[in-house]
Amino acid sequence: MAEVRFSEAELHRFAVAAMVAAGASAENAGLVADVLVAADVRGVNTHGVVRLGPYYAQPVRDHVIDGQATDTDVLDAGFALTIDANNGLGHPVSVRTMRRVIDRAASSGCALAVVRNSNHFGIAAYYALLALERGLIGIAMTNTASFAVPTFGREALLGTNPVAIAIPGAGGDAFVLDMATTTVAFGKIETARRLGKPLEPGWAVDAQGDPTTDPAQAMKGALLPLGGYGTASGGHKGYGLSVLVDLLCGALAGSAFGRARGHAGEPLAGGKVGHFFAAIDPARFGDPQRIAHDVTTLLDELRTSAPANGFARVYAPEDKERNAIAEHRAHGIPFDAPAIAGMHAVAERFGVAAPVALQSSS
Amino acid sequence: MAEVRFSEAELHRFAVAAMVAAGASAENAGLVADVLVAADVRGVNTHGVVRLGPYYAQPVRDHVIDGQATDTDVLDAGFALTIDANNGLGHPVSVRTMRRVIDRAASSGCALAVVRNSNHFGIAAYYALLALERGLIGIAMTNTASFAVPTFGREALLGTNPVAIAIPGAGGDAFVLDMATTTVAFGKIETARRLGKPLEPGWAVDAQGDPTTDPAQAMKGALLPLGGYGTASGGHKGYGLSVLVDLLCGALAGSAFGRARGHAGEPLAGGKVGHFFAAIDPARFGDPQRIAHDVTTLLDELRTSAPANGFARVYAPEDKERNAIAEHRAHGIPFDAPAIAGMHAVAERFGVAAPVALQSSS
Repeated sequence: MAEVRFSEAELHRFAVAAMVAAGASAENAGLVADVLVAADVRGVNTHGVVRLGPYYAQPVRDHVIDGQATDTDVLDAGFALTIDANNGLGHPVSVRTMRRVIDRAASSGCALAVVRNSNHFGIAAYYALLALERGLIGIAMTNTASFAVPTFGREALLGTNPVAIAIPGAGGDAFVLDMATTTVAFGKIETARRLGKPLEPGWAVDAQGDPTTDPAQAMKGALLPLGGYGTASGGHKGYGLSVLVDLLCGALAGSAFGRARGHAGEPLAGGKVGHFFAAIDPARFGDPQRIAHDVTTLLDELRTSAPANGFARVYAPEDKERNAIAEHRAHGIPFDAPAIAGMHAVAERFGVAAPVALQSSS
Repeated sequence: MAEVRFSEAELHRFAVAAMVAAGASAENAGLVADVLVAADVRGVNTHGVVRLGPYYAQPVRDHVIDGQATDTDVLDAGFALTIDANNGLGHPVSVRTMRRVIDRAASSGCALAVVRNSNHFGIAAYYALLALERGLIGIAMTNTASFAVPTFGREALLGTNPVAIAIPGAGGDAFVLDMATTTVAFGKIETARRLGKPLEPGWAVDAQGDPTTDPAQAMKGALLPLGGYGTASGGHKGYGLSVLVDLLCGALAGSAFGRARGHAGEPLAGGKVGHFFAAIDPARFGDPQRIAHDVTTLLDELRTSAPANGFARVYAPEDKERNAIAEHRAHGIPFDAPAIAGMHAVAERFGVAAPVALQSSS
């Protein structure tokens, strides 16, 4: 089967066109496209252009999300910003807010922001990575629709609630962590069901809150926090991290949290998502070149440490994404047949040209 | 078997006396005792007075740790403090630094600090909890001697590297998370070996980096990051969190990290530990009473949500510790026979009176 690849530029053109056709402003459409294509370039194709239709374009057309929204300052305490997204798309308000946080941290050393009444913002790493361009540490979090049970519970009150942190290293190197606080994202359950494969233990529970490795039962149940079922392997730690994210992105932000966010299985409501952003200037703690050098020294110690049996090498966080970015920039971004069919359906629905694949070089 | 309990005051008296006899200054001894006894009161007896002799008093007497040390400001950037512990005890520099961070955050909204050349600081929660007294969010992290392998690796390059975060709720309620970034602490391996019980999968690897449930093999091997072996259940996430802590407490702080920290199995070297502290004033993001109310609303939603089969209830993070604190304040803190024997050995070695148990009320 020939692999079909697309250029960044062509995917971006398609995403902008579809978002504008759906009703988004040109600025908002461009920022949505930036983040979605960046996910595909990083190899996180679950969060890339494949989500354009169901997550963003259709809800804008249906007026569930306001594609024309601009952001409002609720409170500006200098180092601390509280922003209302006014039920706009999650990516634009997040890019605009993180850029303000970065500007403030670059001048005064540290800045934080919370965003309320927003929507899905794509990959958390995108916003943390923006800080690296200015030599800053970047942090981004979001709560999400509820997919996960608390430890000992059966009610899905918590989202996958991802956290991303980026710390600059030397010579373009960096530490980047972008992790859901559940063991896996919901997409892994769907994939296992499609392939007829059992789940790993610790991924999910059934509708009664009992652990299950049956994807069909898990689809009716919920995800487990990082660390799995119960407390024996640290499930209470992932649960705690998930609550932390909901407190910062919900309670602190003045946005929806817990039950008010609504369950993933319910019809999509707009404006139920909040975000948290921060940037810190390492130069306020010492010589930034010494710090960046030390960051890369630790990452290199890990990269060159002895692998366990059956593994070729140890990766530092972000190494696999960096490899994917290089490969995709050189040869284009591969999409599978269902993803391509999905893009064609979006193109047809919104009356825009479907993305044109690159000529196969094989 | 009669349960033997001790009062907070008597444990504190004993810990201060032993630390002073070992060579610590009165101020440093008092702060070490505060943190150790607080751990016992919280029910975290692995990190309490049982560690007094081997972790703190003996290294001070042996001049591995400087019990008289005072802290030095390396850099004071206002919101950001860089402190040198000068190879002093970990608890005193941490209490003094966190109090400065809290004072600054209370007046200006946010402050951070890193500490270099320090030693074990006990439970991370202690420092995060100090922020609650002033209505602030508190964060504390430390790196530790190396106990854990990176994902796909066999070399223990990472510590248990705990993270603690406290967020004030309403009416004395709070969210408090204090978690090692490994699946379990090393003490659980030792306990399993003593009881002749197998480990849970995902806790540890043997000396070759292969997963093991044999505690004897694990003692020669290393711990696994939260999420366990490989990447199937998110081990790379716990690994990433552990690296994050080492970067903030080592690289950013200008303290030891990675290989330079030294392995837990080697003779204890002083000054190889770094810390990270932060405090944030929620009032800069909105009405603090509304925020505290929302924090407790989410925690109450979790507490009252439906439990899974076999569980009586769902706990919010910190509920079990809060129950332990109330019970221990009312009835004293229970110690088992080996822990009591250990305290008597310390009393004899340092020439101080052993703690006197409470009269049994049963």
